[in-house]
Amino acid sequence: MSLRTGFMRNILRPVLTALVAAPLALPVPALAESSANAPAGDVAWDIVSGLTTDVGQRLAGSEAEARARAWGAEKLKALGFQNVAVEPFTIRGYVRGVDKARLIAPVPQVLAVTALGYSGATPDKGIEGDIAYFPTLAALKAAPDGSLGGKIAFIDHAMRRAQDGAGYGPYGQVRREGPGVASRKGAAAVVIRSVGTDSHRNPHTGVTSFPQGVKPIPAGAVSNPDADLIARLAASGRTLRLALTLTGKTTEGMPSGNVVGELPGRDPSLPPILVGCHLDSWDLGTGAIDDASGCAIVTAAALKAQDGGRALRTIRVLWAGSEELGGYGGDAYAKAHAEPHALAMESDFGADRVWRVQTRFAPADKALAERIVAALNPLGVVPGKGEAGGGTDVEPVIEKQKLAVVDLGQDGTHYFDLHHTPDDTLDKVDPAALAQNVAAWTEVLKIVANVAEPVAPAG
Amino acid sequence: MSLRTGFMRNILRPVLTALVAAPLALPVPALAESSANAPAGDVAWDIVSGLTTDVGQRLAGSEAEARARAWGAEKLKALGFQNVAVEPFTIRGYVRGVDKARLIAPVPQVLAVTALGYSGATPDKGIEGDIAYFPTLAALKAAPDGSLGGKIAFIDHAMRRAQDGAGYGPYGQVRREGPGVASRKGAAAVVIRSVGTDSHRNPHTGVTSFPQGVKPIPAGAVSNPDADLIARLAASGRTLRLALTLTGKTTEGMPSGNVVGELPGRDPSLPPILVGCHLDSWDLGTGAIDDASGCAIVTAAALKAQDGGRALRTIRVLWAGSEELGGYGGDAYAKAHAEPHALAMESDFGADRVWRVQTRFAPADKALAERIVAALNPLGVVPGKGEAGGGTDVEPVIEKQKLAVVDLGQDGTHYFDLHHTPDDTLDKVDPAALAQNVAAWTEVLKIVANVAEPVAPAG
Repeated sequence: MSLRTGFMRNILRPVLTALVAAPLALPVPALAESSANAPAGDVAWDIVSGLTTDVGQRLAGSEAEARARAWGAEKLKALGFQNVAVEPFTIRGYVRGVDKARLIAPVPQVLAVTALGYSGATPDKGIEGDIAYFPTLAALKAAPDGSLGGKIAFIDHAMRRAQDGAGYGPYGQVRREGPGVASRKGAAAVVIRSVGTDSHRNPHTGVTSFPQGVKPIPAGAVSNPDADLIARLAASGRTLRLALTLTGKTTEGMPSGNVVGELPGRDPSLPPILVGCHLDSWDLGTGAIDDASGCAIVTAAALKAQDGGRALRTIRVLWAGSEELGGYGGDAYAKAHAEPHALAMESDFGADRVWRVQTRFAPADKALAERIVAALNPLGVVPGKGEAGGGTDVEPVIEKQKLAVVDLGQDGTHYFDLHHTPDDTLDKVDPAALAQNVAAWTEVLKIVANVAEPVAPAG
Repeated sequence: MSLRTGFMRNILRPVLTALVAAPLALPVPALAESSANAPAGDVAWDIVSGLTTDVGQRLAGSEAEARARAWGAEKLKALGFQNVAVEPFTIRGYVRGVDKARLIAPVPQVLAVTALGYSGATPDKGIEGDIAYFPTLAALKAAPDGSLGGKIAFIDHAMRRAQDGAGYGPYGQVRREGPGVASRKGAAAVVIRSVGTDSHRNPHTGVTSFPQGVKPIPAGAVSNPDADLIARLAASGRTLRLALTLTGKTTEGMPSGNVVGELPGRDPSLPPILVGCHLDSWDLGTGAIDDASGCAIVTAAALKAQDGGRALRTIRVLWAGSEELGGYGGDAYAKAHAEPHALAMESDFGADRVWRVQTRFAPADKALAERIVAALNPLGVVPGKGEAGGGTDVEPVIEKQKLAVVDLGQDGTHYFDLHHTPDDTLDKVDPAALAQNVAAWTEVLKIVANVAEPVAPAG
């Protein structure tokens, strides 16, 4: 990824930004003109650039996320979307404080650390403790309850790259489950190796959780090079002692919300196609690949799917809020929208190329599934052997209504280099790959939004 | 670079560390046995690993640099070097304080910033100012003196990758000269685009200077993605306002020193071969490529050059102190060592492969130069068209004594991705490339340390 960004950063980007900025200063045209005048590639770039530049980080529950909702609603209206609405809800938020970590023995070393979402808090002056090193989450689980006696647990792991992101499930458990386990074992705090595949001094944040009855303890992640250092020092048999300051706080009842908008179909009586992404981001970076790109892709494709004429079915765009803290936006959407939907899709895996398509249709819709696969073939997209699932923001409504689903799988080889880090910034988005995403989504939406027959529940 | 580190970080590294650690626990053998028992590749890895793991950052003038000197002297003795000595001197140091920057208009955005060495200090609560954006240093120079009226100057630039690092000269002027120019123009502070070629949220520090009579103002560098953001916002024509806190202090009379050691030649009356590197590092990372690798390479090669039997001439190793703050170690060495030298070399450009050799010999030593070039040919090293210069740590003695010089040019394509950043850590060193460096240096040292005839001053 760094190989291409050097070029893109300074050569392509200002040119593209200049090209894209101009049309948006014009008066907002009606839908047909809008989709004709603004090539979808530019709409997508403009959304990613706008969300990262003019909003920046938009942590769930924050004032920045509220600004992102206002920006999103205005943007959708400007692009010709109708029935644009902000649908508010409240969440259990996490407000970041001071994050600091340094080894004080066997040698002083400053570590790059981030608090995990819903971490317990240290006092402002921090805490100190010896490190109990666990090479795996399983090793920590094998320790007797209460045995850590106030130490700081360090949980290592061995996540590797995978094109489909398969490592995030198992190794992500270190972040999701590890802190709760460490607390039960008696740890005063816990630090994990970042759930990421890069070797930069940028730690990966993300949400953790403590089960009912388990005391939330301070929980942080250090960057991979820092985790390497801890592993080397631990392997030398010396005692490691850590000073840790993580002062962030969990706060109930924080304001959040979804932004929805529609491109009404020629037959508004038909259940709509739902395309989702999430608007919130972690606060360390500016959420370019997670998930401004997703909102850019689904929105630009929804518009571009109207190029040959308005689609038969309504396409509804969902820019979900507070995905990162536990899928609040998807839950709120499913609760608020009991009306029937035809099919749901989501984009939330970065901005690299779509390489795989998987679907979930009722047996009766086999031919529809085959048409989709065939339409994607010229774009380098191959059928996968698995079943589509949607994604956090659309899964609740999919579950509730047993919806048909199409998953356009993006290449995630480099996704976990950037995921939830300060490095999730605009320069990491490749305009050509973004455009390929929009093209693939457009092919699918042109098919599914023009299906006249009912789309059967996928069961 | 990131493509290979994922593999190296977790697979190769622990294995190599384990392999290397064992021999060093043994009693220190005499020179001949040492070089026989410890393959030079392992010696090099052990030095880089040790300096980064067991010492860490070693900022010039700091307590950490003093620990590095002690570690270095002990290491050289353990490896069989003789006449090992620490040669102290004092420097004008820079003690880092709090580094923070955030845009407060037109949109709140936290920036990744570092103070430059010898930066002026802001008050603890920081300062605020509108940004005056300059796309180049030349544009800033063109502004009338005093015209910036208390604004914060931002200096952009367009450094690109170059295999030989050619961008660092011209674009590095933004850091070296820019702050002084900004002060003369009336700026309250100055922030530059990092002098680096990566796209990570890791700013590049480095030393700046204010000419006599020019007031030192707070001077920082933001990461390239943050500089991109500033450039995009500046291009939109809106007013940018920055809150900047850089509280570090310049301090006179701080302790530093060089570490020297020798592998005595069979004829101690012959002037020695001097091989240099620097022991200090910037404080953001752990100085793996800048310059633990250099010390590792010259030291391992000096040992390996004895493999076929002790060399005729003494090889003297100089691990210089306080290079980063202005070449103090090289100056101190030249002052302390008026005795004749035969030839000098330095390694201070990372740990990637040697691809080019350049020399500076008197015309009488043309055949010697040709032997060196021929010996390197099997290692993929080609002759360059330029003249060798040595490097900061050996240049003063080279200048004084008009010494012959051999430069083994390393591939610097990725060097300025890491240079002076938090990312300069052990995982960035490729053991195979490090070993190729040692092999190339060994070839050269075997030749020059066994020349019986006087090596002529190169003039």
